[in-house]
Amino acid sequence: MRLRNKPWATDFIASHPNVVIPNPEEHIGKWQAVFGNDNPLHIEVGTGKGQFVTGMALQNPDINYIGIELYDSVMVCALEKAIAANTPANLRLLKVNGADLLTYFEKGDVAQVYLNFSDPWPKVRHAKRRLTHEGFLKLYESILVDEGEVHFKTDNRGLFEYSLMSISAYGMLLKDVSLDLHVNMPVDNVMTEYEERFSAKGQPIYRLEAKFQTKA
Amino acid sequence: MRLRNKPWATDFIASHPNVVIPNPEEHIGKWQAVFGNDNPLHIEVGTGKGQFVTGMALQNPDINYIGIELYDSVMVCALEKAIAANTPANLRLLKVNGADLLTYFEKGDVAQVYLNFSDPWPKVRHAKRRLTHEGFLKLYESILVDEGEVHFKTDNRGLFEYSLMSISAYGMLLKDVSLDLHVNMPVDNVMTEYEERFSAKGQPIYRLEAKFQTKA
Ligand SMILES: C[S@@+](CC[C@H](N)C(=O)[O-])C[C@H]1O[C@@H](n2cnc3c(N)ncnc32)[C@H](O)[C@@H]1O
Ligand SMILES: C[S@@+](CC[C@H](N)C(=O)[O-])C[C@H]1O[C@@H](n2cnc3c(N)ncnc32)[C@H](O)[C@@H]1O
Repeated sequence: MRLRNKPWATDFIASHPNVVIPNPEEHIGKWQAVFGNDNPLHIEVGTGKGQFVTGMALQNPDINYIGIELYDSVMVCALEKAIAANTPANLRLLKVNGADLLTYFEKGDVAQVYLNFSDPWPKVRHAKRRLTHEGFLKLYESILVDEGEVHFKTDNRGLFEYSLMSISAYGMLLKDVSLDLHVNMPVDNVMTEYEERFSAKGQPIYRLEAKFQTKA
Repeated sequence: MRLRNKPWATDFIASHPNVVIPNPEEHIGKWQAVFGNDNPLHIEVGTGKGQFVTGMALQNPDINYIGIELYDSVMVCALEKAIAANTPANLRLLKVNGADLLTYFEKGDVAQVYLNFSDPWPKVRHAKRRLTHEGFLKLYESILVDEGEVHFKTDNRGLFEYSLMSISAYGMLLKDVSLDLHVNMPVDNVMTEYEERFSAKGQPIYRLEAKFQTKA
Protein backbone atom coordinates (compact mmCIF):
# COMPACT_ATOMS: atom_id res chain seq x y z
CA MET A 1 0.00 0.00 0.00
CA ARG A 2 1.55 3.27 -1.11
CA LEU A 3 -0.39 6.47 -0.74
CA ARG A 4 0.18 9.64 -2.72
CA ASN A 5 3.51 11.13 -1.72
CA LYS A 6 3.13 13.40 1.28
CA PRO A 7 6.21 15.64 1.61
CA TRP A 8 5.10 16.87 5.03
CA ALA A 9 4.81 13.29 6.31
CA THR A 10 8.49 12.92 7.19
CA ASP A 11 8.45 16.14 9.21
CA PHE A 12 5.20 15.25 10.94
CA ILE A 13 6.61 11.84 11.90
CA ALA A 14 9.90 13.35 13.11
CA SER A 15 8.02 15.78 15.33
CA HIS A 16 6.38 12.92 17.28
CA PRO A 17 9.34 10.91 18.64
CA ASN A 18 7.17 9.91 21.62
CA VAL A 19 5.13 7.73 19.22
CA VAL A 20 7.30 6.97 16.17
CA ILE A 21 10.57 5.94 17.78
CA PRO A 22 13.66 7.52 16.19
CA ASN A 23 16.81 5.36 16.10
CA PRO A 24 14.97 2.21 17.17
CA GLU A 25 18.19 0.17 16.88
CA GLU A 26 19.30 1.82 20.13
CA HIS A 27 16.56 0.03 22.04
CA ILE A 28 17.41 -3.52 21.00
CA GLY A 29 17.20 -5.78 24.03
CA LYS A 30 15.78 -3.01 26.24
CA TRP A 31 12.31 -2.19 24.97
CA GLN A 32 10.96 -2.43 28.50
CA ALA A 33 12.78 0.85 29.28
CA VAL A 34 10.93 2.55 26.43
CA PHE A 35 7.56 1.53 27.87
CA GLY A 36 8.63 1.89 31.48
CA ASN A 37 7.30 -1.54 32.44
CA ASP A 38 7.99 -5.23 31.78
CA ASN A 39 4.72 -6.13 30.14
CA PRO A 40 4.90 -8.46 27.13
CA LEU A 41 5.57 -6.82 23.77
CA HIS A 42 3.45 -7.64 20.71
CA ILE A 43 4.49 -6.30 17.31
CA GLU A 44 2.57 -5.96 14.07
CA VAL A 45 4.57 -6.13 10.84
CA GLY A 46 2.92 -4.14 8.05
CA THR A 47 0.71 -2.01 10.24
CA GLY A 48 -0.73 0.14 7.46
CA LYS A 49 -2.96 2.90 8.74
CA GLY A 50 -2.83 1.64 12.31
CA GLN A 51 -6.43 0.84 13.22
CA PHE A 52 -5.55 -2.67 14.48
CA VAL A 53 -2.53 -1.83 16.59
CA THR A 54 -4.21 1.24 18.11
CA GLY A 55 -7.38 -0.72 18.86
CA MET A 56 -5.39 -3.54 20.43
CA ALA A 57 -3.41 -1.08 22.58
CA LEU A 58 -6.63 0.45 23.89
CA GLN A 59 -8.21 -2.96 24.46
CA ASN A 60 -5.21 -4.48 26.28
CA PRO A 61 -3.45 -1.93 28.49
CA ASP A 62 -1.23 -4.64 30.03
CA ILE A 63 0.40 -5.47 26.72
CA ASN A 64 2.85 -3.21 24.89
CA TYR A 65 2.40 -2.82 21.14
CA ILE A 66 4.70 -1.74 18.35
CA GLY A 67 3.34 -1.22 14.84
CA ILE A 68 5.92 -1.51 12.06
CA GLU A 69 5.32 0.16 8.71
CA LEU A 70 7.66 0.78 5.82
CA TYR A 71 6.20 3.89 4.22
CA ASP A 72 6.07 7.43 5.61
CA SER A 73 2.92 8.14 3.64
CA VAL A 74 1.08 5.28 5.36
CA MET A 75 2.75 5.63 8.74
CA VAL A 76 1.46 9.17 8.98
CA CYS A 77 -2.11 7.80 9.07
CA ALA A 78 -1.16 5.38 11.84
CA LEU A 79 0.40 8.24 13.76
CA GLU A 80 -2.72 10.38 13.35
CA LYS A 81 -4.81 7.46 14.60
CA ALA A 82 -2.59 7.06 17.68
CA ILE A 83 -2.89 10.78 18.41
CA ALA A 84 -6.67 10.67 17.93
CA ALA A 85 -6.71 7.82 20.50
CA ASN A 86 -4.83 10.04 22.95
CA THR A 87 -1.43 8.38 22.29
CA PRO A 88 -1.87 5.25 24.43
CA ALA A 89 1.13 4.80 26.73
CA ASN A 90 1.50 1.17 25.57
CA LEU A 91 1.74 1.95 21.84
CA ARG A 92 4.72 2.85 19.68
CA LEU A 93 5.32 2.87 15.93
CA LEU A 94 8.47 2.05 13.95
CA LYS A 95 8.99 3.29 10.45
CA VAL A 96 11.31 0.49 9.34
CA ASN A 97 11.42 -2.54 7.08
CA GLY A 98 10.13 -5.77 8.60
CA ALA A 99 12.98 -7.55 6.81
CA ASP A 100 15.37 -5.81 9.24
CA LEU A 101 13.73 -7.00 12.47
CA LEU A 102 17.05 -8.31 13.79
CA THR A 103 18.41 -4.76 13.81
CA TYR A 104 15.75 -3.71 16.31
CA PHE A 105 14.91 -6.78 18.37
CA GLU A 106 16.82 -9.66 19.89
CA LYS A 107 15.75 -13.11 21.11
CA GLY A 108 13.01 -12.82 23.72
CA ASP A 109 12.20 -9.13 23.10
CA VAL A 110 8.86 -9.99 21.51
CA ALA A 111 6.02 -12.18 22.85
CA GLN A 112 3.78 -12.20 19.78
CA VAL A 113 3.87 -11.20 16.10
CA TYR A 114 0.77 -10.02 14.24
CA LEU A 115 0.45 -10.06 10.47
CA ASN A 116 -2.72 -8.59 8.99
CA PHE A 117 -3.67 -8.59 5.33
CA SER A 118 -0.03 -8.74 4.33
CA ASP A 119 0.82 -8.08 0.70
CA PRO A 120 0.09 -11.36 -1.13
CA TRP A 121 2.98 -11.36 -3.64
CA PRO A 122 1.13 -13.91 -5.78
CA LYS A 123 3.95 -14.59 -8.23
CA VAL A 124 6.02 -17.61 -7.30
CA ARG A 125 9.25 -15.73 -7.96
CA HIS A 126 8.22 -13.21 -5.26
CA ALA A 127 7.42 -15.89 -2.65
CA LYS A 128 10.38 -14.78 -0.52
CA ARG A 129 8.70 -11.43 0.06
CA ARG A 130 5.60 -12.97 1.64
CA LEU A 131 5.65 -12.24 5.36
CA THR A 132 4.96 -15.94 6.06
CA HIS A 133 7.88 -17.17 3.94
CA GLU A 134 10.38 -19.37 5.74
CA GLY A 135 12.87 -16.49 5.77
CA PHE A 136 10.47 -14.27 7.72
CA LEU A 137 9.40 -17.11 10.05
CA LYS A 138 13.07 -17.49 10.90
CA LEU A 139 13.26 -13.77 11.73
CA TYR A 140 10.21 -13.98 13.98
CA GLU A 141 11.59 -17.03 15.76
CA SER A 142 14.87 -15.16 16.34
CA ILE A 143 13.19 -12.31 18.23
CA LEU A 144 10.31 -14.13 19.94
CA VAL A 145 10.23 -15.71 23.35
CA ASP A 146 10.28 -19.52 23.38
CA GLU A 147 6.98 -20.89 22.08
CA GLY A 148 6.15 -17.40 20.81
CA GLU A 149 3.21 -17.03 18.46
CA VAL A 150 2.36 -15.57 15.08
CA HIS A 151 -1.25 -14.47 14.52
CA PHE A 152 -2.24 -13.89 10.93
CA LYS A 153 -5.43 -12.62 9.26
CA THR A 154 -6.08 -12.18 5.56
CA ASP A 155 -8.77 -12.22 2.92
CA ASN A 156 -6.31 -13.61 0.39
CA ARG A 157 -6.95 -17.29 -0.22
CA GLY A 158 -3.71 -17.98 -2.07
CA LEU A 159 -1.59 -16.34 0.62
CA PHE A 160 -3.44 -18.18 3.36
CA GLU A 161 -3.04 -21.56 1.65
CA TYR A 162 0.66 -20.82 1.17
CA SER A 163 1.01 -19.73 4.79
CA LEU A 164 -0.56 -22.93 6.16
CA MET A 165 1.98 -24.96 4.18
CA SER A 166 4.93 -22.71 4.99
CA ILE A 167 4.11 -22.74 8.71
CA SER A 168 3.68 -26.51 8.67
CA ALA A 169 6.94 -27.04 6.82
CA TYR A 170 8.71 -24.86 9.39
CA GLY A 171 7.56 -27.23 12.13
CA MET A 172 5.29 -24.71 13.82
CA LEU A 173 2.10 -25.83 15.52
CA LEU A 174 -1.23 -24.59 14.12
CA LYS A 175 -2.98 -23.68 17.35
CA ASP A 176 -6.08 -22.14 15.85
CA VAL A 177 -7.51 -21.82 12.35
CA SER A 178 -10.64 -20.06 11.16
CA LEU A 179 -11.69 -20.13 7.52
CA ASP A 180 -14.50 -17.60 7.96
CA LEU A 181 -13.68 -15.48 10.99
CA HIS A 182 -16.74 -13.26 10.84
CA VAL A 183 -19.25 -16.12 11.01
CA ASN A 184 -18.52 -16.53 14.70
CA MET A 185 -16.75 -13.23 15.27
CA PRO A 186 -14.62 -13.45 18.42
CA VAL A 187 -15.79 -10.75 20.83
CA ASP A 188 -12.27 -9.36 21.15
CA ASN A 189 -11.57 -9.23 17.39
CA VAL A 190 -10.11 -5.84 16.41
CA MET A 191 -10.74 -5.14 12.74
CA THR A 192 -8.06 -3.74 10.47
CA GLU A 193 -8.79 -1.27 7.67
CA TYR A 194 -8.46 -4.01 5.07
CA GLU A 195 -10.61 -6.38 7.11
CA GLU A 196 -13.47 -3.87 7.15
CA ARG A 197 -13.17 -3.32 3.45
CA PHE A 198 -13.06 -6.97 2.40
CA SER A 199 -15.58 -8.33 4.85
CA ALA A 200 -18.03 -5.63 3.70
CA LYS A 201 -17.72 -7.23 0.25
CA GLY A 202 -18.78 -10.56 1.76
CA GLN A 203 -15.39 -12.24 1.37
CA PRO A 204 -14.42 -14.74 4.05
CA ILE A 205 -11.62 -13.64 6.38
CA TYR A 206 -9.06 -16.33 7.16
CA ARG A 207 -7.17 -16.40 10.45
CA LEU A 208 -4.57 -18.57 12.11
CA GLU A 209 -2.51 -18.73 15.28
CA ALA A 210 0.76 -20.61 15.03
CA LYS A 211 3.32 -21.36 17.69
CA PHE A 212 7.05 -21.99 17.39
CA GLN A 213 8.01 -25.27 18.98
CA THR A 214 11.19 -25.77 20.93
CA LYS A 215 13.24 -28.34 19.08
CA ALA A 216 13.94 -31.50 21.03
CA MET B 1 -25.17 -41.68 5.48
CA ARG B 2 -27.74 -44.40 6.03
CA LEU B 3 -30.12 -45.32 3.26
CA ARG B 4 -33.47 -46.98 3.68
CA ASN B 5 -32.91 -50.54 4.80
CA LYS B 6 -32.40 -52.87 1.87
CA PRO B 7 -32.90 -56.47 2.98
CA TRP B 8 -31.58 -57.80 -0.31
CA ALA B 9 -28.37 -55.75 0.05
CA THR B 10 -26.57 -58.31 2.21
CA ASP B 11 -27.30 -61.10 -0.25
CA PHE B 12 -26.31 -59.00 -3.23
CA ILE B 13 -23.01 -58.09 -1.56
CA ALA B 14 -22.34 -61.71 -0.56
CA SER B 15 -22.87 -62.81 -4.15
CA HIS B 16 -20.01 -60.59 -5.39
CA PRO B 17 -16.97 -61.80 -3.42
CA ASN B 18 -14.77 -60.79 -6.36
CA VAL B 19 -15.52 -57.13 -5.50
CA VAL B 20 -16.61 -56.99 -1.85
CA ILE B 21 -13.96 -59.09 -0.18
CA PRO B 22 -15.32 -61.61 2.35
CA ASN B 23 -13.16 -62.29 5.44
CA PRO B 24 -10.77 -59.41 4.68
CA GLU B 25 -8.80 -60.12 7.87
CA GLU B 26 -7.33 -63.14 6.04
CA HIS B 27 -5.50 -60.85 3.63
CA ILE B 28 -3.66 -58.76 6.20
CA GLY B 29 -0.06 -58.24 5.05
CA LYS B 30 -0.73 -59.92 1.67
CA TRP B 31 -3.05 -57.67 -0.28
CA GLN B 32 -0.76 -57.90 -3.28
CA ALA B 33 -1.92 -61.50 -3.72
CA VAL B 34 -5.53 -60.31 -3.92
CA PHE B 35 -4.68 -57.95 -6.76
CA GLY B 36 -2.10 -60.23 -8.36
CA ASN B 37 0.51 -57.46 -8.57
CA ASP B 38 2.67 -55.31 -6.31
CA ASN B 39 1.26 -51.94 -7.25
CA PRO B 40 0.75 -49.45 -4.41
CA LEU B 41 -2.53 -49.71 -2.50
CA HIS B 42 -4.69 -46.65 -1.80
CA ILE B 43 -7.70 -46.94 0.47
CA GLU B 44 -10.69 -44.68 0.98
CA VAL B 45 -12.31 -44.73 4.41
CA GLY B 46 -16.03 -43.88 4.23
CA THR B 47 -16.48 -44.59 0.53
CA GLY B 48 -20.21 -43.98 0.43
CA LYS B 49 -21.72 -44.75 -2.96
CA GLY B 50 -18.36 -45.34 -4.57
CA GLN B 51 -18.10 -42.75 -7.34
CA PHE B 52 -14.67 -41.54 -6.19
CA VAL B 53 -12.98 -44.88 -5.67
CA THR B 54 -14.38 -46.29 -8.92
CA GLY B 55 -13.35 -43.18 -10.86
CA MET B 56 -9.86 -43.27 -9.35
CA ALA B 57 -9.47 -46.97 -10.21
CA LEU B 58 -10.40 -46.29 -13.83
CA GLN B 59 -8.13 -43.24 -14.01
CA ASN B 60 -5.08 -44.92 -12.45
CA PRO B 61 -4.77 -48.57 -13.52
CA ASP B 62 -1.33 -48.87 -11.88
CA ILE B 63 -2.68 -48.21 -8.42
CA ASN B 64 -4.83 -50.63 -6.44
CA TYR B 65 -7.86 -49.21 -4.63
CA ILE B 66 -9.95 -50.41 -1.71
CA GLY B 67 -13.09 -48.55 -0.72
CA ILE B 68 -14.20 -49.07 2.88
CA GLU B 69 -17.81 -48.52 3.87
CA LEU B 70 -19.66 -49.41 7.05
CA TYR B 71 -23.22 -49.86 5.83
CA ASP B 72 -24.64 -52.56 3.56
CA SER B 73 -27.31 -50.19 2.30
CA VAL B 74 -24.67 -47.75 1.04
CA MET B 75 -22.09 -50.34 0.01
CA VAL B 76 -24.61 -51.85 -2.36
CA CYS B 77 -24.54 -48.61 -4.40
CA ALA B 78 -20.75 -48.69 -4.52
CA LEU B 79 -20.90 -52.30 -5.67
CA GLU B 80 -23.39 -51.42 -8.40
CA LYS B 81 -21.11 -48.61 -9.53
CA ALA B 82 -18.12 -50.95 -9.70
CA ILE B 83 -20.17 -53.43 -11.75
CA ALA B 84 -21.39 -50.65 -14.06
CA ALA B 85 -17.71 -49.72 -14.59
CA ASN B 86 -16.99 -53.33 -15.60
CA THR B 87 -15.46 -54.28 -12.21
CA PRO B 88 -12.00 -52.78 -12.64
CA ALA B 89 -9.31 -55.32 -11.78
CA ASN B 90 -7.62 -52.81 -9.44
CA LEU B 91 -10.70 -52.11 -7.31
CA ARG B 92 -12.05 -53.87 -4.23
CA LEU B 93 -14.55 -52.92 -1.55
CA LEU B 94 -14.59 -53.77 2.16
CA LYS B 95 -17.74 -53.62 4.20
CA VAL B 96 -16.08 -52.97 7.54
CA ASN B 97 -15.61 -50.26 10.14
CA GLY B 98 -12.71 -47.87 9.53
CA ALA B 99 -12.07 -47.95 13.27
CA ASP B 100 -10.92 -51.57 12.80
CA LEU B 101 -8.28 -50.91 10.14
CA LEU B 102 -5.64 -52.76 12.15
CA THR B 103 -7.64 -55.97 11.74
CA TYR B 104 -7.25 -55.80 7.97
CA PHE B 105 -3.98 -54.00 7.29
CA GLU B 106 -0.51 -53.97 8.78
CA LYS B 107 2.37 -51.48 8.59
CA GLY B 108 3.31 -50.79 4.99
CA ASP B 109 0.23 -52.40 3.40
CA VAL B 110 -1.17 -49.03 2.35
CA ALA B 111 0.48 -46.20 0.38
CA GLN B 112 -2.23 -43.57 0.70
CA VAL B 113 -5.46 -42.93 2.62
CA TYR B 114 -8.34 -40.95 1.15
CA LEU B 115 -11.04 -39.31 3.23
CA ASN B 116 -13.87 -37.60 1.38
CA PHE B 117 -16.68 -35.61 2.95
CA SER B 118 -16.34 -37.57 6.15
CA ASP B 119 -19.11 -37.24 8.71
CA PRO B 120 -18.39 -33.95 10.54
CA TRP B 121 -19.43 -34.95 14.09
CA PRO B 122 -19.71 -31.27 15.05
CA LYS B 123 -20.27 -31.80 18.77
CA VAL B 124 -17.07 -31.58 20.79
CA ARG B 125 -17.97 -34.70 22.74
CA HIS B 126 -18.01 -36.64 19.43
CA ALA B 127 -14.60 -35.35 18.28
CA LYS B 128 -13.09 -38.83 18.64
CA ARG B 129 -15.34 -40.09 15.86
CA ARG B 130 -13.99 -37.61 13.32
CA LEU B 131 -11.84 -39.48 10.81
CA THR B 132 -9.07 -36.90 11.28
CA HIS B 133 -9.00 -37.26 15.07
CA GLU B 134 -5.64 -38.17 16.55
CA GLY B 135 -6.88 -41.71 17.18
CA PHE B 136 -7.60 -42.26 13.49
CA LEU B 137 -4.37 -40.58 12.39
CA LYS B 138 -2.58 -43.10 14.58
CA LEU B 139 -4.40 -45.93 12.80
CA TYR B 140 -3.47 -44.59 9.38
CA GLU B 141 0.16 -44.20 10.40
CA SER B 142 0.15 -47.81 11.66
CA ILE B 143 -0.83 -49.22 8.26
CA LEU B 144 0.83 -46.74 5.88
CA VAL B 145 4.27 -46.96 4.34
CA ASP B 146 6.83 -44.52 5.78
CA GLU B 147 5.97 -40.95 4.78
CA GLY B 148 2.56 -42.18 3.66
CA GLU B 149 -0.08 -39.59 2.91
CA VAL B 150 -3.64 -38.73 3.82
CA HIS B 151 -5.70 -36.82 1.23
CA PHE B 152 -8.86 -35.21 2.50
CA LYS B 153 -11.69 -33.28 0.82
CA THR B 154 -14.74 -31.76 2.47
CA ASP B 155 -17.25 -28.96 2.21
CA ASN B 156 -17.49 -28.77 6.00
CA ARG B 157 -15.61 -25.73 7.29
CA GLY B 158 -15.63 -26.77 10.93
CA LEU B 159 -14.30 -30.24 10.16
CA PHE B 160 -11.61 -28.83 7.89
CA GLU B 161 -10.46 -26.28 10.48
CA TYR B 162 -10.35 -29.06 13.07
CA SER B 163 -8.44 -31.33 10.70
CA LEU B 164 -5.75 -28.73 9.97
CA MET B 165 -5.15 -28.37 13.70
CA SER B 166 -5.32 -32.10 14.44
CA ILE B 167 -2.90 -32.91 11.61
CA SER B 168 -0.52 -30.16 12.73
CA ALA B 169 -0.64 -31.31 16.35
CA TYR B 170 0.16 -34.86 15.19
CA GLY B 171 3.37 -33.56 13.60
CA MET B 172 2.29 -34.32 10.05
CA LEU B 173 3.41 -32.08 7.19
CA LEU B 174 0.75 -30.15 5.25
CA LYS B 175 1.96 -30.76 1.72
CA ASP B 176 -0.90 -29.14 -0.11
CA VAL B 177 -3.93 -27.10 0.91
CA SER B 178 -6.75 -25.70 -1.20
CA LEU B 179 -9.52 -23.62 0.29
CA ASP B 180 -11.62 -23.52 -2.87
CA LEU B 181 -10.71 -26.56 -4.93
CA HIS B 182 -13.06 -25.89 -7.81
CA VAL B 183 -11.69 -22.43 -8.60
CA ASN B 184 -8.63 -24.01 -10.19
CA MET B 185 -9.99 -27.53 -10.53
CA PRO B 186 -7.08 -29.96 -10.88
CA VAL B 187 -7.49 -31.82 -14.17
CA ASP B 188 -7.28 -35.19 -12.41
CA ASN B 189 -9.82 -34.35 -9.69
CA VAL B 190 -12.37 -37.16 -9.35
CA MET B 191 -15.58 -35.84 -7.82
CA THR B 192 -17.42 -37.70 -5.08
CA GLU B 193 -21.20 -37.78 -4.81
CA TYR B 194 -21.13 -35.27 -1.96
CA GLU B 195 -18.67 -33.05 -3.83
CA GLU B 196 -21.04 -32.77 -6.78
CA ARG B 197 -23.92 -31.98 -4.52
CA PHE B 198 -22.21 -29.30 -2.43
CA SER B 199 -20.26 -27.63 -5.19
CA ALA B 200 -23.48 -27.31 -7.18
CA LYS B 201 -24.76 -25.22 -4.27
CA GLY B 202 -21.76 -22.91 -4.70
CA GLN B 203 -20.04 -23.97 -1.47
CA PRO B 204 -16.23 -23.99 -1.49
CA ILE B 205 -14.61 -27.42 -1.38
CA TYR B 206 -11.62 -27.69 0.96
CA ARG B 207 -8.80 -30.13 0.29
CA LEU B 208 -5.51 -31.06 1.91
CA GLU B 209 -2.66 -33.51 1.48
CA ALA B 210 -0.74 -34.38 4.61
CA LYS B 211 2.28 -36.59 5.07
CA PHE B 212 3.43 -38.56 8.10
CA GLN B 213 6.98 -37.68 9.03
CA THR B 214 9.49 -40.20 10.25
CA LYS B 215 10.41 -39.24 13.79
CA ALA B 216 14.09 -38.42 14.29
C1 LIG C 1 -2.02 -4.63 2.43
S1 LIG C 1 -1.52 -3.52 3.63
C2 LIG C 1 -2.41 -4.01 5.08
C3 LIG C 1 -2.42 -2.97 6.14
C4 LIG C 1 -3.08 -3.34 7.48
N1 LIG C 1 -2.32 -4.40 8.16
C5 LIG C 1 -4.52 -3.75 7.34
O1 LIG C 1 -4.82 -4.94 7.55
O2 LIG C 1 -5.37 -2.92 7.01
C6 LIG C 1 0.14 -4.07 3.96
C7 LIG C 1 0.99 -3.03 4.64
O3 LIG C 1 2.25 -3.61 4.99
C8 LIG C 1 3.29 -2.71 4.70
N2 LIG C 1 4.50 -3.52 4.48
C9 LIG C 1 4.69 -4.40 3.49
N3 LIG C 1 5.90 -4.96 3.59
C10 LIG C 1 6.48 -4.42 4.69
C11 LIG C 1 7.73 -4.61 5.31
N4 LIG C 1 8.63 -5.45 4.80
N5 LIG C 1 7.99 -3.90 6.43
C12 LIG C 1 7.08 -3.04 6.93
N6 LIG C 1 5.88 -2.83 6.36
C13 LIG C 1 5.57 -3.52 5.26
C14 LIG C 1 2.80 -1.98 3.48
O4 LIG C 1 3.45 -0.74 3.30
C15 LIG C 1 1.31 -1.83 3.77
O5 LIG C 1 1.05 -0.64 4.50
C1 LIG D 1 -20.94 -38.18 4.39
S1 LIG D 1 -20.69 -39.69 3.59
C2 LIG D 1 -19.57 -39.30 2.24
C3 LIG D 1 -19.52 -40.36 1.20
C4 LIG D 1 -18.51 -40.19 0.06
N1 LIG D 1 -17.13 -40.29 0.58
C5 LIG D 1 -18.70 -38.90 -0.69
O1 LIG D 1 -17.83 -38.02 -0.60
O2 LIG D 1 -19.70 -38.76 -1.39
C6 LIG D 1 -19.67 -40.58 4.74
C7 LIG D 1 -19.65 -42.07 4.53
O3 LIG D 1 -18.70 -42.64 5.39
C8 LIG D 1 -19.24 -43.82 5.97
N2 LIG D 1 -18.54 -44.02 7.25
C9 LIG D 1 -18.62 -43.22 8.32
N3 LIG D 1 -17.86 -43.70 9.31
C10 LIG D 1 -17.30 -44.84 8.84
C11 LIG D 1 -16.43 -45.80 9.41
N4 LIG D 1 -15.97 -45.68 10.68
N5 LIG D 1 -16.03 -46.82 8.64
C12 LIG D 1 -16.49 -46.96 7.38
N6 LIG D 1 -17.33 -46.08 6.80
C13 LIG D 1 -17.72 -45.04 7.52
C14 LIG D 1 -20.71 -43.52 6.12
O4 LIG D 1 -21.49 -44.70 6.21
C15 LIG D 1 -20.98 -42.73 4.83
O5 LIG D 1 -21.34 -43.58 3.76
